[in-house]
Amino acid sequence: MKTYLDCIPCFFKQALEAARTAGASTKTQKKILDELAKILPKISLTSSPPEIGRVIYALVSEITGKNDPYLKEKKRSNKLALGIYDKLARKIASAGDKLLFAVELAIAGNIIDYGVKNSLNVDAELVKILDKEEKIIKKESKTIFDYAGFKQVLRHAKNILYLADNAGEVVFDRILIEQIKSMDKDKQIVYAVKEKPVINDALRQDAVVCGIKKIARIVSSGSGAPGTVLSLCSKKFLSMYRKADMVISKGQGNFEALSNAKRSVFFLFMAKCPVIAKDVGCKVGDIILCYHGSKK
Amino acid sequence: MKTYLDCIPCFFKQALEAARTAGASTKTQKKILDELAKILPKISLTSSPPEIGRVIYALVSEITGKNDPYLKEKKRSNKLALGIYDKLARKIASAGDKLLFAVELAIAGNIIDYGVKNSLNVDAELVKILDKEEKIIKKESKTIFDYAGFKQVLRHAKNILYLADNAGEVVFDRILIEQIKSMDKDKQIVYAVKEKPVINDALRQDAVVCGIKKIARIVSSGSGAPGTVLSLCSKKFLSMYRKADMVISKGQGNFEALSNAKRSVFFLFMAKCPVIAKDVGCKVGDIILCYHGSKK
Repeated sequence: MKTYLDCIPCFFKQALEAARTAGASTKTQKKILDELAKILPKISLTSSPPEIGRVIYALVSEITGKNDPYLKEKKRSNKLALGIYDKLARKIASAGDKLLFAVELAIAGNIIDYGVKNSLNVDAELVKILDKEEKIIKKESKTIFDYAGFKQVLRHAKNILYLADNAGEVVFDRILIEQIKSMDKDKQIVYAVKEKPVINDALRQDAVVCGIKKIARIVSSGSGAPGTVLSLCSKKFLSMYRKADMVISKGQGNFEALSNAKRSVFFLFMAKCPVIAKDVGCKVGDIILCYHGSKK
Repeated sequence: MKTYLDCIPCFFKQALEAARTAGASTKTQKKILDELAKILPKISLTSSPPEIGRVIYALVSEITGKNDPYLKEKKRSNKLALGIYDKLARKIASAGDKLLFAVELAIAGNIIDYGVKNSLNVDAELVKILDKEEKIIKKESKTIFDYAGFKQVLRHAKNILYLADNAGEVVFDRILIEQIKSMDKDKQIVYAVKEKPVINDALRQDAVVCGIKKIARIVSSGSGAPGTVLSLCSKKFLSMYRKADMVISKGQGNFEALSNAKRSVFFLFMAKCPVIAKDVGCKVGDIILCYHGSKK
């Protein structure tokens, strides 16, 4: 996805939030916004938002000297999600269509990220998710939801590359991966995290803490962009990306980075801003399961 | 009110909206944002938002060559509000506390401005206001509402300076001014509009079209800032400002410009953004009637 002009005010907002999370003084916060302003005229709108996001968060780290401002928040999210893992697993066990329920949960887990960025009461939201019956996501929010396509490609996929989104949310990914493995234990799943800290995106340690290690091989994309920007990924990762029978991409950042990808990718995410909702053709808050590219 | 760092992303958003309203191409829109980015490091946060707003809207006019991008919108707002004038007047006539109702209506009229900036269905909102009973504004939205103080100062004021906010809203101001005059026809009211086009702020022609001429003297503040920034106002206006027995200031822009004023001012506005809500100590959407400064 290209960057829209409406993303520009949001870049300043994100920089300010990151600066504050890094504990920067008001003076330093202003300095960060001023530096971003200097970069802005050089930014090409043909870059995807995560490419620009990478520059912004690197700027915040450089100026504040804080390598991982969201570390505390990520640990909190992991703990929170792990605390409800048993409940989630029981829900799956009693569900009619277990795979569908796991897919919906994996997308619902995206709410943690939304909470981090919008001061939402995530605990309360998660309780709501858990208290609901099997249909955790309202039908009207599923405007683009190609579950049939997802199931069909999944059935024949032996090697699956799963692109992680945020810390905490990893536990919800684990539920989906466990469900996939329970349907066919021979499926090989690679779980790709970011190479370097960027916002609350999952790193290797988050995947390990959230229990991914037992069910999938954890790899790094080789990049610290908040989305899988292929031009920034490692050769090793790119090889896996090309060879995988199926790519499952979680979150808005990965969608923004890969929506024009040449290979087929399944995107699972919640549309969190008006720009992406317009680009996709849905409403803010809708959950999306969509398939891009030609089937391999 | 000083400018907060949170205002900075919003400045870019406002510039983008104004550029689009002026019919600028995507390339020109980007140019405007780039130029704003160049100005940003020079902006002092001790300036009030309307001082910076003036620079932004002048930039948009300069680059697009459109002197009054919101002209059509202002005409539409005037027409819309004039179309319900009779209904508003009848509502006042049957109200218990006519002055209170007129004050509430004057603040409610601020919704027109909000609609212009947030693509709200203003017509529907106005119908809602009109369909409600006497209490048009919910009690819980009136967190800061010093009606007793307003009445007391008004009683003794012979010369009143009324600072206009936006086109359309002027009709609601007219209702309040008519009510004040009906209580004491000897009160002299001066209605101050902006000198030059800026966003949808009321100009002399808006005041004339909306029928202010019959009940008040229309003057210009001498400035094109979207708020009464005293350092930019004309000497003639400043003299009236200093001599007035009572100043009634409409809208958020005038509050931002005058909240630290040395003389007493009554502010009537709707808190339209989180920054101002935090500054004032209320919620977004609350209506405010507050008194600043020592009584004259």
